[in-house]
Amino acid sequence: MITVCVVGLGQIGGSFAAALTRRRLARVVGVTRRASTARRARAMGLLAEAGTDLDAVSTADVTVLATPVRTLLGQIPAVARLVRPGSILTDVGSTKHDILRALKAAARPDATVVAGHPMAGNERAGLDGVDPKLFEARPWVLIGDRRRAAPLERLVRGVGARPVWMSDARDHDFKVARVSHIPYLLAYALMGTEEEAIRVSGNSFRDATRVALSDPDMTLDFLLTNAGPIAEAAKRLAGRLRDLTSRIRAGDEAGLRAALARARARRARL
Amino acid sequence: MITVCVVGLGQIGGSFAAALTRRRLARVVGVTRRASTARRARAMGLLAEAGTDLDAVSTADVTVLATPVRTLLGQIPAVARLVRPGSILTDVGSTKHDILRALKAAARPDATVVAGHPMAGNERAGLDGVDPKLFEARPWVLIGDRRRAAPLERLVRGVGARPVWMSDARDHDFKVARVSHIPYLLAYALMGTEEEAIRVSGNSFRDATRVALSDPDMTLDFLLTNAGPIAEAAKRLAGRLRDLTSRIRAGDEAGLRAALARARARRARL
Repeated sequence: MITVCVVGLGQIGGSFAAALTRRRLARVVGVTRRASTARRARAMGLLAEAGTDLDAVSTADVTVLATPVRTLLGQIPAVARLVRPGSILTDVGSTKHDILRALKAAARPDATVVAGHPMAGNERAGLDGVDPKLFEARPWVLIGDRRRAAPLERLVRGVGARPVWMSDARDHDFKVARVSHIPYLLAYALMGTEEEAIRVSGNSFRDATRVALSDPDMTLDFLLTNAGPIAEAAKRLAGRLRDLTSRIRAGDEAGLRAALARARARRARL
Repeated sequence: MITVCVVGLGQIGGSFAAALTRRRLARVVGVTRRASTARRARAMGLLAEAGTDLDAVSTADVTVLATPVRTLLGQIPAVARLVRPGSILTDVGSTKHDILRALKAAARPDATVVAGHPMAGNERAGLDGVDPKLFEARPWVLIGDRRRAAPLERLVRGVGARPVWMSDARDHDFKVARVSHIPYLLAYALMGTEEEAIRVSGNSFRDATRVALSDPDMTLDFLLTNAGPIAEAAKRLAGRLRDLTSRIRAGDEAGLRAALARARARRARL
């Protein structure tokens, strides 16, 4: 059985550890900054061992960086030095351009670097959000040397996720800006609506604002490391909103009906 | 037991009939345009009687107009003539300014006019969407003469909804534009995202686009009868989106953190 070292036991790291352990896919070793978090993860049965010593990385076949993006960027040099020759170094950060560049710059030539991003999550922060089924049927983006990443790809499939290989980190960041970061921004913007109006809101408002319940630290992390793609995606979205509004003002029933039917058909295929 | 005549047996009219019948709050008579819909509603046990003859209105203590908004606007004169003296005439349309004006213009002086809007719904069109629990714990906006509306208010509470009295139809339309119509427009705008990006979407995108699955006829109905308030609400939303984006570009972590925390606290109270 291979050894996986998970650095950072938040919602994603903890859930990955739990899923690997429960399905007996790997022996999982965890590293956290605080001993109390390590103790709690052990007590929850998420992994075989957990502690605060980063040297655990040197025992692993696969090392997974699962701290918040901005913490992670700072940890990369220290972790990359410890990675065992021939093993795989990956991460689960939600933006990829800066991380992949830092991983490639720091990694030893005999290590396989694969940046990763599971498209999964819930509103609960830290170990409270651990769910061994979190990744089931969800995309897990991978960027890097696919030919050498078979052991990692097996783990990703093993926890129920669907690997989606991408060739370009910047392309990833633009895509997640559009389908993930923009829904967060829209939820925050909607929550700026007057309390008086929110009193009469129904399910459409609840659904559209659910992610506003997320941990602000996690959200800030991906918003602040993906500013360019988010600004571009927001501009596009605003353009489409303006287009719909002017069709409504013009009473363009035929045009709107076609747009609505197209959107409905695409959503039904999701 | 009072008699309620529901004109139009779609998702809302059918669900209201079902909720009243199941809880024995009223004897419900339905009127539909097509005899086959009336037969199906009877077979489903939603009501005591159903047919295509609008004269049923003249037997009712409460008449509920539940056809799509634009159909409803055309029916008001004919229905208002048939309403029994002393009875209540209401509707469940999702925009209120044009409807209330038409109801007041057409109603006989001895009828009580109360415009209504239950903030409830699902993605299934017509009788397929009938759910006797649809209104439970949902706001039901009422506009009109409250002192004479006690029998209607009892029915609204009886089906589990929370009556929210408003004094102004235009004010209602601005509010629902902000908390209901805008989430629909955002869902349609998001569904304009490239297929390639949608491939890596997660729950935030699914939640924010769920209402794009709704019946386009229903959606067109409220979009096209509420153009002014929707345009205004879209402009405000776009402004808040721009504000968030520029804070991200500026790396204003403190300002963003405050905004995110405020949004989270408000969403948690919903």
